[in-house]
Amino acid sequence: MVKYKIFFSPEKKEIITDGKTNLYQIATDAGIYITSGCAGEGNCGRCKVIVRQGKYRTQPSRFISEKEKKEGYLLACQTYPESDLEILIPPGSGLKKWTLIKDGVYTAEELIWRGNYLKWEFSPLAKKIYLELPAPTLTDHLSDFERLVRELKSRKDLHLRDPGIKITLPKLQKLAQFLRENQWKLTLTLADNGEIIDYEPGDMTAGSYGLALDIGTTTVALSLIDLNKNEVLGAKATYNQQMSFGDDVISRIIYAENETGGLEKLNRVVRETVNWLISELVKEKGIENKDILALEVAGNTTMNHLFLSLPPGYIRKEPYLPTANFLPDLKGKEIGINIHSEGIVSFCPNVSSYIGGDVTAGILASGMDEKGEISLLIDLGTNGEMVLGNKDFLISAACSAGPAFEGVGIKSGIRAMEGAVENIQISADGKKVKYTTIGNKPPAGICGSGLVDAVAELFKDGFLDRKGKFILESSSLIRESEEGKEFLLVPGKETVNKKDIVLSEADISTLIRSKGAIYLGASVLLEEMGYQFSDLKKIYLAGMFGTYLDIEKAIIIGLLPDLPRTFVQDNNATYEMSEQKLPEFSQTKVRGLAREKFVFLGNSAISGAKLCLLYGEARNKVREIAKKTTYLELSVNPKFMNEYSATLFLPHTNIDLFPSVKKLLNI
Amino acid sequence: MVKYKIFFSPEKKEIITDGKTNLYQIATDAGIYITSGCAGEGNCGRCKVIVRQGKYRTQPSRFISEKEKKEGYLLACQTYPESDLEILIPPGSGLKKWTLIKDGVYTAEELIWRGNYLKWEFSPLAKKIYLELPAPTLTDHLSDFERLVRELKSRKDLHLRDPGIKITLPKLQKLAQFLRENQWKLTLTLADNGEIIDYEPGDMTAGSYGLALDIGTTTVALSLIDLNKNEVLGAKATYNQQMSFGDDVISRIIYAENETGGLEKLNRVVRETVNWLISELVKEKGIENKDILALEVAGNTTMNHLFLSLPPGYIRKEPYLPTANFLPDLKGKEIGINIHSEGIVSFCPNVSSYIGGDVTAGILASGMDEKGEISLLIDLGTNGEMVLGNKDFLISAACSAGPAFEGVGIKSGIRAMEGAVENIQISADGKKVKYTTIGNKPPAGICGSGLVDAVAELFKDGFLDRKGKFILESSSLIRESEEGKEFLLVPGKETVNKKDIVLSEADISTLIRSKGAIYLGASVLLEEMGYQFSDLKKIYLAGMFGTYLDIEKAIIIGLLPDLPRTFVQDNNATYEMSEQKLPEFSQTKVRGLAREKFVFLGNSAISGAKLCLLYGEARNKVREIAKKTTYLELSVNPKFMNEYSATLFLPHTNIDLFPSVKKLLNI
Repeated sequence: MVKYKIFFSPEKKEIITDGKTNLYQIATDAGIYITSGCAGEGNCGRCKVIVRQGKYRTQPSRFISEKEKKEGYLLACQTYPESDLEILIPPGSGLKKWTLIKDGVYTAEELIWRGNYLKWEFSPLAKKIYLELPAPTLTDHLSDFERLVRELKSRKDLHLRDPGIKITLPKLQKLAQFLRENQWKLTLTLADNGEIIDYEPGDMTAGSYGLALDIGTTTVALSLIDLNKNEVLGAKATYNQQMSFGDDVISRIIYAENETGGLEKLNRVVRETVNWLISELVKEKGIENKDILALEVAGNTTMNHLFLSLPPGYIRKEPYLPTANFLPDLKGKEIGINIHSEGIVSFCPNVSSYIGGDVTAGILASGMDEKGEISLLIDLGTNGEMVLGNKDFLISAACSAGPAFEGVGIKSGIRAMEGAVENIQISADGKKVKYTTIGNKPPAGICGSGLVDAVAELFKDGFLDRKGKFILESSSLIRESEEGKEFLLVPGKETVNKKDIVLSEADISTLIRSKGAIYLGASVLLEEMGYQFSDLKKIYLAGMFGTYLDIEKAIIIGLLPDLPRTFVQDNNATYEMSEQKLPEFSQTKVRGLAREKFVFLGNSAISGAKLCLLYGEARNKVREIAKKTTYLELSVNPKFMNEYSATLFLPHTNIDLFPSVKKLLNI
Repeated sequence: MVKYKIFFSPEKKEIITDGKTNLYQIATDAGIYITSGCAGEGNCGRCKVIVRQGKYRTQPSRFISEKEKKEGYLLACQTYPESDLEILIPPGSGLKKWTLIKDGVYTAEELIWRGNYLKWEFSPLAKKIYLELPAPTLTDHLSDFERLVRELKSRKDLHLRDPGIKITLPKLQKLAQFLRENQWKLTLTLADNGEIIDYEPGDMTAGSYGLALDIGTTTVALSLIDLNKNEVLGAKATYNQQMSFGDDVISRIIYAENETGGLEKLNRVVRETVNWLISELVKEKGIENKDILALEVAGNTTMNHLFLSLPPGYIRKEPYLPTANFLPDLKGKEIGINIHSEGIVSFCPNVSSYIGGDVTAGILASGMDEKGEISLLIDLGTNGEMVLGNKDFLISAACSAGPAFEGVGIKSGIRAMEGAVENIQISADGKKVKYTTIGNKPPAGICGSGLVDAVAELFKDGFLDRKGKFILESSSLIRESEEGKEFLLVPGKETVNKKDIVLSEADISTLIRSKGAIYLGASVLLEEMGYQFSDLKKIYLAGMFGTYLDIEKAIIIGLLPDLPRTFVQDNNATYEMSEQKLPEFSQTKVRGLAREKFVFLGNSAISGAKLCLLYGEARNKVREIAKKTTYLELSVNPKFMNEYSATLFLPHTNIDLFPSVKKLLNI
């Protein structure tokens, strides 16, 4: 058998291979992560690498420009070694294995809109309880286990979901000796399903922690909570390492289905991702893994499947079924997560294949399910999910928004990290661009919210037409590239990697398709229930993209509906204003006050998971929510099919749907 | 290190040892079973072996007669090799490893006195259910697991104890593929606690079996039941192989506590015993182990502990506590029993350290817990257990009856097997003995019921005084031996092993202590509740010994109370007779009719276990019974202590308590 040595930089890893495996496969098998939107199918152009030395065969690709070709760029997934090779993975293609990111990190209590949770009794998913059992006598001769149970039942603060106390055989085998050696004084760790997680000598209640976990397609976020103090101790987030196997759930599902060991690999890397976050939190806070008693998970349906090695294939095949929506309680050791080996792992339930536990957790955090008023929740992640309803009904739909909102699949796109261009202003002559970046760092690329900002600015100021095409001659910054027209936002001399940051017509087209799907999805849900946008009292924006979003700009491009502004007077009374009566347009005033029907939930998945970790009432509610929420399949909905093309305009074919934009444009 | 080879016959096994281990230990470690009442403490004299060749050191023992000494007999547990040895284990000391025995085998429906169980809805502990799920569509898009659950919930015949359907992660992982490969047609195996045991393609409901298991200290009995037909297919019993480690629960507990690996060894041999019975039944009926879905266990508290490797030490130490009375549901694989690996194992609950699941099962089978009339249940096994009560109360007590009732610890004693002398008549001149044996086989020894019979006959006919001492000169068959006086029942020329079958004064004394404890225990229970024997409407006799027992003889020796006879007239009316009015004493008539208050339950432990295996109602009842039954500790009861000596007479110090015996003896 032929054997080649492949040397990867910057990882400095040498891999021996047989010449039959492509570079993408070789790298990911070895734990070297190369970004990929299509998981090695050659369809996304994201796994670009540079061959420094050696022979190879490769397929030509439309994703490699002439310039890049000369520099040695090729698609890793289309390239096979024919000698020893030296490969450089450029910054844009590598996924830095373990980086903490700001996205998804939210610990603030105030992000939970369901205010009345404050009235709920504190009753965490698992807790440590210190017990001093009365020593047995001839007249009080209950057995050891029943003695323990009697003491537990006498406690008023247990709040068990399941009243039966359950013990495993190994724990029962050691109980008698343990109780006597420790003079009947012990700390019992009990899950709310009645299972005894552990017992320890004396009072060990001090170290008692839980985790709320949001497994997103792109981002995995984790909060560590002190279960004694009901207090968030810390939070971390990082990229889901599954990113190497596709940007969106569909490409991950295909990878899990079609690659040998694909599901196992996806499962392994998400477990590694979560365990890494745990290890970072544990290190930082100086706690022990065994003192983490409970983990509440809010993931989308596919992520939940991959987290549990449930085959996800049927999620993407009509009629789109998950294996389960209500997932069983599990133990840390059963799923290979480094909490207490018997610690409880519980899941916010899914509603359907495309409405997952992250959405039910979001509904829970918003409180929309117990209000009389009609509201809409929009979760703008890699997938777009929408829920319409109130205390009487909840109806949901999902559509693939694509990863554009996360800055992915965009020519100069990056995620919402430091150095991401987030705010843009263009001079009236179209010659100068002012921008700000996240953290005021030198610009590295444009993130999702920056993209919305840029398109809104260009459109509002007349450099783009309503189809999203550049109006030639309107600005000297509009230019032709190999891949079509583009707008130069930041010249290479100002950027981190000395490459121009641009906005291409293809990028704009991608964004328009994304915003169109979201807007139309929401319209279909409303129509289905006989409502209009004007009936909405609130629009909850969930997901981290939502948090960075400028509402006004989102309305200008037609992503969000043009709900009437409100105006707060000095006496704090709120009035709904018609466009006619609206005071002079003021960016700051509008952002602060005028669009108050829009509510940012932040990472509502983790907020909901946190509620479930801490309150039995929340665990009941989230189950009720999942049962109550109906699901509308947009992909077979006639209105969705027929009206989609009408949304592919800025802001919409029917400009009258967007009165404030109409006014702004003076049409 | 010194090494000796020890060769054991008849097993023909050679063991290498170091000279520091005694012969009993060497044999039992190697799986060669030597009977022992004290588990190697030198206190019972049961582990006699013969050294054929070699040097050894041994302790002299009162259990070895001069004659035996000459023949090379010694106690294995007191003997250490000092060279290679050849050992013969004589038939009396060996425990034939695997023999099926008649004891404990009961399949008859009519032995269940709780008649109203016939009205209960058939609802076995586990069952196979054939399901044809509707294939999913875009409008019926429940997830796979919830689809399964919906179908199950629509079934009227489930009768689940726990309404939540539970599935393990490995089964959930395979579910989606399985359902589609099998066109949504499957056989689901479901335990009554809601756990999915298995799923199989198509309709596999045909093979669906359960086991009812009685783990006795001496005997282990198993019934195989067809869970589709509610029909006993077969039953087997054998000796509990733990017999090598002590006759009674106390010596087993001591062995488990004091010997290194003692608990593990006791656990292993009882599992081997049960698995062997299972393998015999499976072979005979041509079924597969995996089709055995459920096992219901009725064992005494110590046996339950040893079956689950729960340390039993605290059972025998004041205040006498088990680890648990209500044992958790377990799975076949968790306890190493060869049923379906996920098959449910459930336990009839214990009441206390000395009132176990065998007794609660017995109460269940008797139905005494739901009648208005007061009745008494006596379980005559190695331990004697008594329960007094009716639908309003149940009170229990236990006393160590010793193994005499099982023919153990008696000079010529054997268990109730073929060849056991069970019935004895002695000619008026005391010169001739007529006897019958079980199965009419050549006599091999005397069993427990034969012992009662012999003592009653000898006493009634004037060869024994009321203290249980032989009246010298009354019979030429009374003789002196090394160990004291004895009565020659069967001369060696008629017996299987050519040894005389005798009844010694020591044997009689042992029996008197046993019967005294039982009678007094029952008296104390009655007095505790303010009743007398005459208030009893029924005495249920449980245990296999009870089944062979001659009631009339048991009353003569004072084991059972002298309850008034009843007389059935031609018109089927029943009258209670005073002794004065009693018609001429007739052995047959009395056995058949006159002592009708006594009811033989047979192996009520297995009858109760069978009810629990088959009826949800029984599983509820047996739990209620265990909760309701109080326990009276006799070992600290003043009446029990003070009056014990008064019971050490035939039938009792106070002969007026036994009017029919008084009349019979013409006192």
